[in-house]
Amino acid sequence: MPSVEHIFANFALHVSLNAEEQRYIQSVLQRKILDKNKLLLETGETCRNLYFVDKGCLRVFNRDKEGLEHNVLFCPENWWAADMTSFSGQVPAYYNIAALETTELFYISYQALEQLYIDVPKMERFFRILAQNGFSLYQRRVNAIISRSAEERYLQFQQLYPKLEQRIAQKHIASYLGITPVFLSMIRRRNG
Amino acid sequence: MPSVEHIFANFALHVSLNAEEQRYIQSVLQRKILDKNKLLLETGETCRNLYFVDKGCLRVFNRDKEGLEHNVLFCPENWWAADMTSFSGQVPAYYNIAALETTELFYISYQALEQLYIDVPKMERFFRILAQNGFSLYQRRVNAIISRSAEERYLQFQQLYPKLEQRIAQKHIASYLGITPVFLSMIRRRNG
Repeated sequence: MPSVEHIFANFALHVSLNAEEQRYIQSVLQRKILDKNKLLLETGETCRNLYFVDKGCLRVFNRDKEGLEHNVLFCPENWWAADMTSFSGQVPAYYNIAALETTELFYISYQALEQLYIDVPKMERFFRILAQNGFSLYQRRVNAIISRSAEERYLQFQQLYPKLEQRIAQKHIASYLGITPVFLSMIRRRNG
Repeated sequence: MPSVEHIFANFALHVSLNAEEQRYIQSVLQRKILDKNKLLLETGETCRNLYFVDKGCLRVFNRDKEGLEHNVLFCPENWWAADMTSFSGQVPAYYNIAALETTELFYISYQALEQLYIDVPKMERFFRILAQNGFSLYQRRVNAIISRSAEERYLQFQQLYPKLEQRIAQKHIASYLGITPVFLSMIRRRNG
């Protein structure tokens, strides 16, 4: 088993786990390495796992009727990733998830998590807070798309994802911001 | 204290509370009656309470730069209402909440709920599931606005809110669907 340092530090943000609880949780965590550009989840599939990014970066995106991709979220180190609606209701996913870099993940299956809630009830607290934070993030994202300028969205992106800009392709950032790569270059020059 | 039948039936959807836990929860619930058209929360205020609609109906809305109102959610009987981001982070609200009818509410303050999580840990489970469901609902709503026709949104509205159509003004439904009242009448005739 590789180091669980990052994921346990993440749990420790909201709950305090004793040694026995930590051992139990470690026993239900699974590990996956996803090559760059590979898909972790495809629209229409059921999202059966909740992922924690230990190293690398994922993107969550959908495809419109014309086949154009729209990035809605990036998940670098220490982020959790899933199609939350698909995972929590075990229904078909609206989003795709793919790796922007070779990505090392921990994950827990839906069934294992349901059992974990029963065996370690304080994990309810952790995932209650995670769900609330996810909701807030998504709401801010939607509001930004509706009511912020491209420039404001770019500055929000920089704030939310420090240093990510240097790691991922310009086209993915432009897609996240809902603008063309050319317009993104222009904004970058103005804010450089 | 008025009957807590509905709110406890709502808790029972996800958790099983013993008599002592029920008494404790009852002791932290507060009650409020809101007159028709009155505001429960205004954009920019911090949402200090989480509300349960016992009778009546709330609407959650925002105002754009031109001052136009956009309804994002209706909360009839047995729905929970808050600006979730504002409540969970105790930060200024993005949304307004107002009564569409005289509305009878139970509510719990942020502090009382934080204490409740400590005293009755199984409430973490209830609100974890509530947060997940709220997230899914919001995501479906956003996706519907982006990728569904007005007619499809109207049919979704009818499905999500059975019989609500007869209770609230046409203009509020049109605002929820993002169309004019005239266009709504046309859709209604086609689906009548």
